[in-house]
Amino acid sequence: MSARRADRLVDLLAERELDALIVTNVTNVRYLTGFTGTNGACVVGREERVFFTDFRYVQQSGEQVRDFERADASRDLLADISARLRGTVGFEEDHLTVAAHRKLGESVPDGVELVPVPGLVERLRSVKDETEVAAMAAAADIATAAYESLRERERGLAGRTERDVAMGLVRFMEDQGSEPPCFPPIVASGAHGSLPHAVPRDVEIARDTLVVIDLGARVDGYCSDCTRTLATGSVTDEMREVYGLVQSAQVEALAAVTAGAECGALDAVAREIIDAAGHADHFGHGLGHGVGLQVHETPRLGKTAEGQVGAGNAVTVEPGVYLPGEFGVRIEDLVVVTEAEPCVLTAFPKDLVTVR
Amino acid sequence: MSARRADRLVDLLAERELDALIVTNVTNVRYLTGFTGTNGACVVGREERVFFTDFRYVQQSGEQVRDFERADASRDLLADISARLRGTVGFEEDHLTVAAHRKLGESVPDGVELVPVPGLVERLRSVKDETEVAAMAAAADIATAAYESLRERERGLAGRTERDVAMGLVRFMEDQGSEPPCFPPIVASGAHGSLPHAVPRDVEIARDTLVVIDLGARVDGYCSDCTRTLATGSVTDEMREVYGLVQSAQVEALAAVTAGAECGALDAVAREIIDAAGHADHFGHGLGHGVGLQVHETPRLGKTAEGQVGAGNAVTVEPGVYLPGEFGVRIEDLVVVTEAEPCVLTAFPKDLVTVR
Repeated sequence: MSARRADRLVDLLAERELDALIVTNVTNVRYLTGFTGTNGACVVGREERVFFTDFRYVQQSGEQVRDFERADASRDLLADISARLRGTVGFEEDHLTVAAHRKLGESVPDGVELVPVPGLVERLRSVKDETEVAAMAAAADIATAAYESLRERERGLAGRTERDVAMGLVRFMEDQGSEPPCFPPIVASGAHGSLPHAVPRDVEIARDTLVVIDLGARVDGYCSDCTRTLATGSVTDEMREVYGLVQSAQVEALAAVTAGAECGALDAVAREIIDAAGHADHFGHGLGHGVGLQVHETPRLGKTAEGQVGAGNAVTVEPGVYLPGEFGVRIEDLVVVTEAEPCVLTAFPKDLVTVR
Repeated sequence: MSARRADRLVDLLAERELDALIVTNVTNVRYLTGFTGTNGACVVGREERVFFTDFRYVQQSGEQVRDFERADASRDLLADISARLRGTVGFEEDHLTVAAHRKLGESVPDGVELVPVPGLVERLRSVKDETEVAAMAAAADIATAAYESLRERERGLAGRTERDVAMGLVRFMEDQGSEPPCFPPIVASGAHGSLPHAVPRDVEIARDTLVVIDLGARVDGYCSDCTRTLATGSVTDEMREVYGLVQSAQVEALAAVTAGAECGALDAVAREIIDAAGHADHFGHGLGHGVGLQVHETPRLGKTAEGQVGAGNAVTVEPGVYLPGEFGVRIEDLVVVTEAEPCVLTAFPKDLVTVR
C-alpha cells in the first residue's frame, strides 16, 4: 500500500522536475510509510525511499514501515536527511519552518537545490481509497451511535452539564472502539450555541433550548466529523424556523455534491439560501472541508475556494446560522464524493430531534 | 497578567532592536493574551498590542483577551497582520512556515523589515509564576491520585489490557477535574516497556512483570508529566536490579537540580550512573524537558543541551533503561527549580510498587 502511494508521489515529482521530496509533515509521513509515531520524516524519490526517526521509535517503525529503507536512529532528523540528498529536492513549504529550512540549506551537500513545494502529499491524501473510506465509515458509525446513545433514558441532555455530556460522548465512542477522537466534542447549549467552536462548559443544559453537538470518532487513524443540533424540549418558533432554514441549505448543498462540482459553487448553494432568509451575516464560516487522517484536509469548500471536488474526496457539508447571544444551529454530514450522488457516512436523522 | 507578560516581551525586543514581534505560535498567543482557541495571532510592540482571530472566535476572544486591541475578525490572519506592521519586526522562526513567511514578505508595507527570531516567548514561558506552578501542582496531584487509584481492588493491572488501563486513567483524571490530558498515557507492559513511547495495546497485562506508566493531567491549560514503573507481582532479579539502578540515577540527578546547574551536567549525573552499570546503550533519550502549557518546553536536559536551569523552570527528571525484547524502566518526576532544593510536584512513591 505505502509503495503504491510513494509511486504516485514520484509521478507528481516528475511533473515538477524534482528528483525527490523531503516529507516532514508527520501525517504525510504516516500516509506514505504507515508510521504512527510523533517524530519521523522520509525522503521519496525515483530511486530512494528512506525513512528517518529517532531512538524512541526504532522498534515501532521496524514493525510499521515496510517499503522504505530505514535510516539509523537519530535525534536530529534534518541533519541526517540533508546528508542523503542529491539533485533538485522539494520540501513541504506549508510545513517546514523558516528555521528548519535555513538549517537544511546550510547542511545540504554541494549541488543540492531545495525547492519549496505546496501540498503534494495532501493532494494524494484528498482522494480516499476503499480502505480509507471503510475506516471513515466505521468512525462515522460510532459517532452516529453516540448521538443515538443520548436518547437512552439514563443519559439525555437537560440538567447535565455540557462538559459531562462531552465526556460521556467520548467515553461512549471509545467503548465502541474509537481511538481518541480527532477533536474534543463541541456541546454548546442555548446562547453558547452561537459560538461555532464553543468549548463545553461546567454549565447545566437547560430545558427547551437547542444544543449544538459536533463530534467525531477515529478508526485506524481516520476521523469522522458530524454535527447535529438537538432540542431539549419545546423550542421557540424562531429556533424552529432557523433550524428548518439550515436544514434546507444543508440538504440542497449536499444534493449538489458530485465529482466536478466547483468548491465555491457548493458553498454558494447553501449561502444563497441562508442569505435570502436575511441571515447573510450569521453564517461566517465555509460550507465544509476535507476529512481523513486529519479532521481538516484538502479540499476546502468555501466562498473563495478554488477548484472542484472529485470522486474519492471525503468532505463535510455543514452550513450554520449563529445568532449571537441567542442560539446557533449547525447541521453537518460527512460524505464521499462520487460521479453520481454523494455517499453519506453520517446517518443520524436531520429532522429536529428532541432529547430531554 | 497578560499586560505584564507583554511588557517583559517588549523588553526582550528592545535588546534585539526590534519594534515588534509577530506571534503566530498559538500556545505563545495563549500565554500572552489568554486566548484559548485554535486560531489566533498577535503583534506585540512598545506602542501596540493587537490580537487577531477569525469569525469563529470573536465572541470567545472578546471574553478572554483583555489587554490587547482586538482587530476585526478575519480568515486570513497573515494579510491582516502584515497591514499593521511598521519598522523592524520579528517573526517566530521556529513556527512560521516557509510559505507563510513568503506570503508575509510579499504583503508587508514598504519599509518593513522582517527578522527571524528564535523562541523569545518560549524563554518567558520557561519561568513559571505562582499561578502557573499552582496549576501544574494541581495537575500533578490528579496524576498522583490516578496512580493511587490503580491500587483499588476493582482496578489493578494484571489481566486488564494496556488500552483499558490507559482509558481508565484518563477517565479517572477527568473525573477529578482534569482537562483532556496533554498526551495519551503510555501503559507498556513486559517487553513493550522497552519502547520509550509505546502506544497502549489491546493486550492483557501479565502477572509478574513490569509496567511503565507515563501520564499527565491538565489544569487551566497547564500539563503535568509523571512516569512510574510498577510491578504486577514478583519480578526477576534483573528487573529489580535495573529498577534500583534507574531509581538511584533519578534520585541523584534530582538532587542536583538547582538554579544555575548546567542542563548538560544534570543529564550526565544520571547517565554516568547508568553507563557505569553497563547500560550506556539502553538510555537513549535525554534526562528531561521543561513542562508548562505544552508537555515539551524549554529548557531541555540532555547530553548536548546548553545553558542552565533557573529558578521557576519546571522540568522533568526521567532517566530510563530499555532492554529491547525484555522490559523497560523509567521513573519521572516533575519539579520546579529553586535556588535551593527542587520542589517535587509528583508525589507517588518511587520505591517499586506492586499492583496486581
